[in-house]
Amino acid sequence: MAPLLDKIEEMLLMGPGPSCVPEAIYAAIRRPTIGHLDPHFIAIMDAIKTQLRELIGTANQLTIPISGTGSAGMETCFVNLIEPGNRVLVLSNGVFGVRMQDVAGRLGASVEALEFEWGTPVSVDQVARRLAERKYDIVAVVHAETSTGVRNPIEDIGKLLSGSGTIYLVDAVTSLAGIPIDMDACGIDALYSGTQKCISCPPGLSPVSMSEKALAKLKHRELKVPNWYLDLSMIVGYWAGEKRSYHHTAPINMLYALHAALDLILAEGVSKVFERHGRSHEQLVAGLDKMGLKMLVERPYRLPMLNAVLVPEGVQEAVVRERLRTEFHIEIGAGLGPLAGKIWRVGLMGHTARQTNVDRFLDSLKKVLN
Amino acid sequence: MAPLLDKIEEMLLMGPGPSCVPEAIYAAIRRPTIGHLDPHFIAIMDAIKTQLRELIGTANQLTIPISGTGSAGMETCFVNLIEPGNRVLVLSNGVFGVRMQDVAGRLGASVEALEFEWGTPVSVDQVARRLAERKYDIVAVVHAETSTGVRNPIEDIGKLLSGSGTIYLVDAVTSLAGIPIDMDACGIDALYSGTQKCISCPPGLSPVSMSEKALAKLKHRELKVPNWYLDLSMIVGYWAGEKRSYHHTAPINMLYALHAALDLILAEGVSKVFERHGRSHEQLVAGLDKMGLKMLVERPYRLPMLNAVLVPEGVQEAVVRERLRTEFHIEIGAGLGPLAGKIWRVGLMGHTARQTNVDRFLDSLKKVLN
Repeated sequence: MAPLLDKIEEMLLMGPGPSCVPEAIYAAIRRPTIGHLDPHFIAIMDAIKTQLRELIGTANQLTIPISGTGSAGMETCFVNLIEPGNRVLVLSNGVFGVRMQDVAGRLGASVEALEFEWGTPVSVDQVARRLAERKYDIVAVVHAETSTGVRNPIEDIGKLLSGSGTIYLVDAVTSLAGIPIDMDACGIDALYSGTQKCISCPPGLSPVSMSEKALAKLKHRELKVPNWYLDLSMIVGYWAGEKRSYHHTAPINMLYALHAALDLILAEGVSKVFERHGRSHEQLVAGLDKMGLKMLVERPYRLPMLNAVLVPEGVQEAVVRERLRTEFHIEIGAGLGPLAGKIWRVGLMGHTARQTNVDRFLDSLKKVLN
Repeated sequence: MAPLLDKIEEMLLMGPGPSCVPEAIYAAIRRPTIGHLDPHFIAIMDAIKTQLRELIGTANQLTIPISGTGSAGMETCFVNLIEPGNRVLVLSNGVFGVRMQDVAGRLGASVEALEFEWGTPVSVDQVARRLAERKYDIVAVVHAETSTGVRNPIEDIGKLLSGSGTIYLVDAVTSLAGIPIDMDACGIDALYSGTQKCISCPPGLSPVSMSEKALAKLKHRELKVPNWYLDLSMIVGYWAGEKRSYHHTAPINMLYALHAALDLILAEGVSKVFERHGRSHEQLVAGLDKMGLKMLVERPYRLPMLNAVLVPEGVQEAVVRERLRTEFHIEIGAGLGPLAGKIWRVGLMGHTARQTNVDRFLDSLKKVLN
């Protein structure tokens, strides 16, 4: 093997993703590559669609993994649903809300942002007031803001949009498989996620789902989707057509891994998986509290899978991360944007969210800080 | 393991890609996932850039794998280099030339196609005449047309464009690592490839390289690249910046696989790899000839790695492919578009291009046809 690959050491991945990958998924990703139109592969694709529907809580026919990472899912949702001049409202309280604005703006949308302080959630009241004032073609929000550890109230925002003509677009990259999400009950029209967070699969795919309402908007576009690779009207011909037609060559082995990862989650039971995330989070926060460390986010808005921990006064945060990495083989994340240098981002995603991992992290952090 | 994954059977992949994957690459893809900003992973990224430069024959700094399949590479090159109204000439003699026109058209380019009969190469004389008549911002051509098995004269087309202001864009999805390609010597400004052809890696990544001239066009764009995910001006910050900044989470394990695949090719020696492709092709054609089967493409224009074989009168081509698959575990490809039903596409790509595989295919085909 190439020497650099030989020398890779197993890390406890407690950053903002990728998360730890279970052995069964490594066993899956190395199964023999077969053709992307092989009937056996088509059966795996069909199984993945069924698994994703269950996990996402949707009956949407168009529920498939896109051949790119989570940001490709973001791009997919926006590029298929925006037509030039469309009015897009982004509810924004972190890096990924800002990214949504950039993505939508490049596609010719008229983008407005309703901004909230980083570390606080989107205020449903403020959203209600804005929606009473103006109409939008698309309202977009991040469910779990990976840059701050804040959980946004996607259920209540969904109620505000219910029955309107507005497309409701939700980023579920970090939330999916970590906290409950019920796409259909929330009235979400377009949702995207990533594989390397709570699904605990290597990065490289982005589950996407679209409602009939979203598909109707796609179908009645005046202009072609200005992105051939991510044009869902063609991709569905491969993923869901009666006679599967070639669009692009699917990332076969990554799809094996996703199928195995979803299989593990559904076998454990999604509610058990959510409980495990919650328990690990409580254990982590209690341990940090004992050490005198504080969280960025108020308790009711905290995500279990992404914990923003305030860096204590006088501590060099990068040195702590570096020592955790080199001495203890633990990766945690740095703050982004205005939170750079001010927080650590401690991930408890998917397979990582276990008592032994939290114990190991807390012990190691104590040693580094003392 | 999920039952469908357990039941995957190893196939001899002799279609238009994916090709057979060597064991060392499966061993690589299942190495432990580490963080996308881990210094050890950065070292692997740097190694991949060096390997790709050697394979592509370029000194271009911007030589990286894009986080998507070959078609994402096509999208990347066009979306970064086209500005609305740009004049694009596509030299087109197959599915992938047609695809280029679609991709470029969606991005607001004024697209012209110079078309050649499928199964024949691009005529350099006709290109010269067209270029004498009109000026273009971009001229694009497919090196190895996977839909027909034709090799296009990228060297001679490059000479026509040498010294002009035109960007020369080449699809090397199927050619790279199968036949010689020397990007810098050919004067190519933008090139993309795929991992699942002659690189013999699972599908999921697309090597892309851009010349200084292409980068200058990118740098002086009036409008932002209308695709956040594939915006090279940001992606280089992660792949080549002094301080690597997060853009999207790289497909870690796929990159392990690519590094291992390139390592195998460079260890064998690129000229030896090309010779092996050539020998396998000659062996295949001789064997087919003995069976009375004819090739679609005239000898001088044939690709070694993609052999378009004419389906004999009265033979049901789909039945032959199905029997090869189920009885002999060999996958070959069908014809596309106007060639559907008329040809088989027999791939000899990367690891597949070996004498024993050609023997096995010829023996199996004989049994099926008799």
